[in-house]
Amino acid sequence: MSVQNDQTKAGAGSTVISVDAMGGDRGPAAVVAGISLSAKKNPDIGFILHGPKDELEKLVAKRKPLLGRVQIRDAQDVVLMTDKPSNVMRHGKATSMWSAVDSVRAGDADVCVSCGNTGALMALSMIRLRKLPGVNRPAIAILWPSRNPQGFNVMLDVGADIRADEQDLLQYAMMGASYARNGLALARPRIGLLNVGTEENKGRAELKAAHDLIAAAAPNGNFDFVGFVEGGDIPGRKCDVIVTDGFTGNIALKTGEGTASLIGDLMKEAFKYSPLSRLAAVLAYTSLQRLKKRIDPRRVNGGVFLGLNGTVVKSHGSADATGVAAAVKLAFQLSQTGFSQKLAARVASATAQAKNAGTDQAESSD
Amino acid sequence: MSVQNDQTKAGAGSTVISVDAMGGDRGPAAVVAGISLSAKKNPDIGFILHGPKDELEKLVAKRKPLLGRVQIRDAQDVVLMTDKPSNVMRHGKATSMWSAVDSVRAGDADVCVSCGNTGALMALSMIRLRKLPGVNRPAIAILWPSRNPQGFNVMLDVGADIRADEQDLLQYAMMGASYARNGLALARPRIGLLNVGTEENKGRAELKAAHDLIAAAAPNGNFDFVGFVEGGDIPGRKCDVIVTDGFTGNIALKTGEGTASLIGDLMKEAFKYSPLSRLAAVLAYTSLQRLKKRIDPRRVNGGVFLGLNGTVVKSHGSADATGVAAAVKLAFQLSQTGFSQKLAARVASATAQAKNAGTDQAESSD
Repeated sequence: MSVQNDQTKAGAGSTVISVDAMGGDRGPAAVVAGISLSAKKNPDIGFILHGPKDELEKLVAKRKPLLGRVQIRDAQDVVLMTDKPSNVMRHGKATSMWSAVDSVRAGDADVCVSCGNTGALMALSMIRLRKLPGVNRPAIAILWPSRNPQGFNVMLDVGADIRADEQDLLQYAMMGASYARNGLALARPRIGLLNVGTEENKGRAELKAAHDLIAAAAPNGNFDFVGFVEGGDIPGRKCDVIVTDGFTGNIALKTGEGTASLIGDLMKEAFKYSPLSRLAAVLAYTSLQRLKKRIDPRRVNGGVFLGLNGTVVKSHGSADATGVAAAVKLAFQLSQTGFSQKLAARVASATAQAKNAGTDQAESSD
Repeated sequence: MSVQNDQTKAGAGSTVISVDAMGGDRGPAAVVAGISLSAKKNPDIGFILHGPKDELEKLVAKRKPLLGRVQIRDAQDVVLMTDKPSNVMRHGKATSMWSAVDSVRAGDADVCVSCGNTGALMALSMIRLRKLPGVNRPAIAILWPSRNPQGFNVMLDVGADIRADEQDLLQYAMMGASYARNGLALARPRIGLLNVGTEENKGRAELKAAHDLIAAAAPNGNFDFVGFVEGGDIPGRKCDVIVTDGFTGNIALKTGEGTASLIGDLMKEAFKYSPLSRLAAVLAYTSLQRLKKRIDPRRVNGGVFLGLNGTVVKSHGSADATGVAAAVKLAFQLSQTGFSQKLAARVASATAQAKNAGTDQAESSD
């Protein structure tokens, strides 16, 4: 195993983020450029960086903001996007991803960030960090641009698991509420359960059962339950957290991304159409940049694995420096609020209550 | 029952469309304005219009293009958006929707158009038109703006049924291929099966089984099978027809619509931000109108019910005149190509072959 059991915190920062430098589509240079951006903006972050030592030392040395703030842990192997999760679990001890997750396991960092293979990262996170007591299926939560004042909604699960029964959906609701409180600073998040209609008699059997479980848990759970919501509510203002199974959530996420990308490309075409429209494009430049920034997926880059002993942020595989910096920012926020500990306490108390009191599932801690 | 068993074709048009004037959010005035637009553009359409005779006669009399081209069938009751499908099936004989569907049943029109309650329209279509022999679950197919040369992809099912097993998904593939040949004039449509990844080992058990069934049916089925596709491929160029169950398809459709609507609103805000951006908006007006037209959901208005003895086009409940005209245009196209008959022949032949030859499911008729 390539992880050094070095407990010293990295660099000057008071909050340490463990970062997998390898496995993203753009290689370690983009990751180092990203953490350099973060370091420049935020003096309170330090990094443990995982990957081939020689290569990383050279990349880090070029970035002034990283001076004295990065501890490198040598890991010579890389998890490829094509690697099977089961293979990585058996033979991946020397990989940078394994090493990055193990820094959270060892308590050297609260949160780990990786741009690598999602399936492998989830598998490694499950075996190295283990599920929180009482959690059946961990989930991946993402932020989605929305009409709400906070600018984003939370959706989970977007692909940790293709199945979810009513108990899983209840846990997603509680974990999503906790994430919205800590990641979006919402005191009392509004939870919606994704379905094909808002009437209570609609949808699959597990959705009707989950509807009742989540409604029963809401009064003591520090969240409001708005009932069933539809696909159009994911970017809407009806709720802050959208709960669904990982199959449906993954399809919705990728459909939304694909639609936004198509519209962006068609808009570019429209502005190239005539000399007048090209002039308009010049004048509209700052307006369009503002719009782009508002819906730029790189700026809300980071699926968060919930339900484990420690938090893992999965950055987009194609993330550039801006994308990596966004994922690090999210990781920092979650470290700051003590999110991992709060979520663990909440799930533990809900599980204990459920054992004692049937459907009375949560208490009003954070 | 309010339907007159009048076999005369309506008006001068050679192709007759049965139109439910009631049940849309904007009332019969919008529907009559819509069919008037269609009549003006296309001299070959005639209409059978269903609803309260007195009211409709007044509305039709105001529209010159409709002179002599509309036959009104009196139906005093209206299916409301809040009506339960089961109730409409039992007590809906006097409604305009029932009457509109029955014109197809009687052979007076090939295709019916309604802006009303989707669930009730599907339920009525099922009991009045009945499923094609060999079809287990009918499906609703929609057109989705895409990067393909034809400008749109087909997706089905988007909500006829929340369940679909591998045999249903195979039938959706064949029906979708038939729709793409007749509605989009694609000689050999490319079919994709929606999943959370493109690897063959991904997804639910029924998806893996459907993958093999559709692949086996493709060589004789006049379509190509590209395998699993992801949410991002729905507006993409990888395939022309996206096959999925009605739960997932409905969520994807509404997520895409919601995302497009959010981007549209944010774009408007961006252009109101400063005097310079307002000037840019004026100059960009025609470019933005062109973009709007390209992705305007009203212009691809119409979910098509497939798998019944006759074709039903479900227009958006909130459709205005432009939306209704788009639905009528689609209905006209499908009437012209003899789509209902071709689809029936194809399903019948595939069913016969399946009985004889196991997985060898389709032949090369249209």
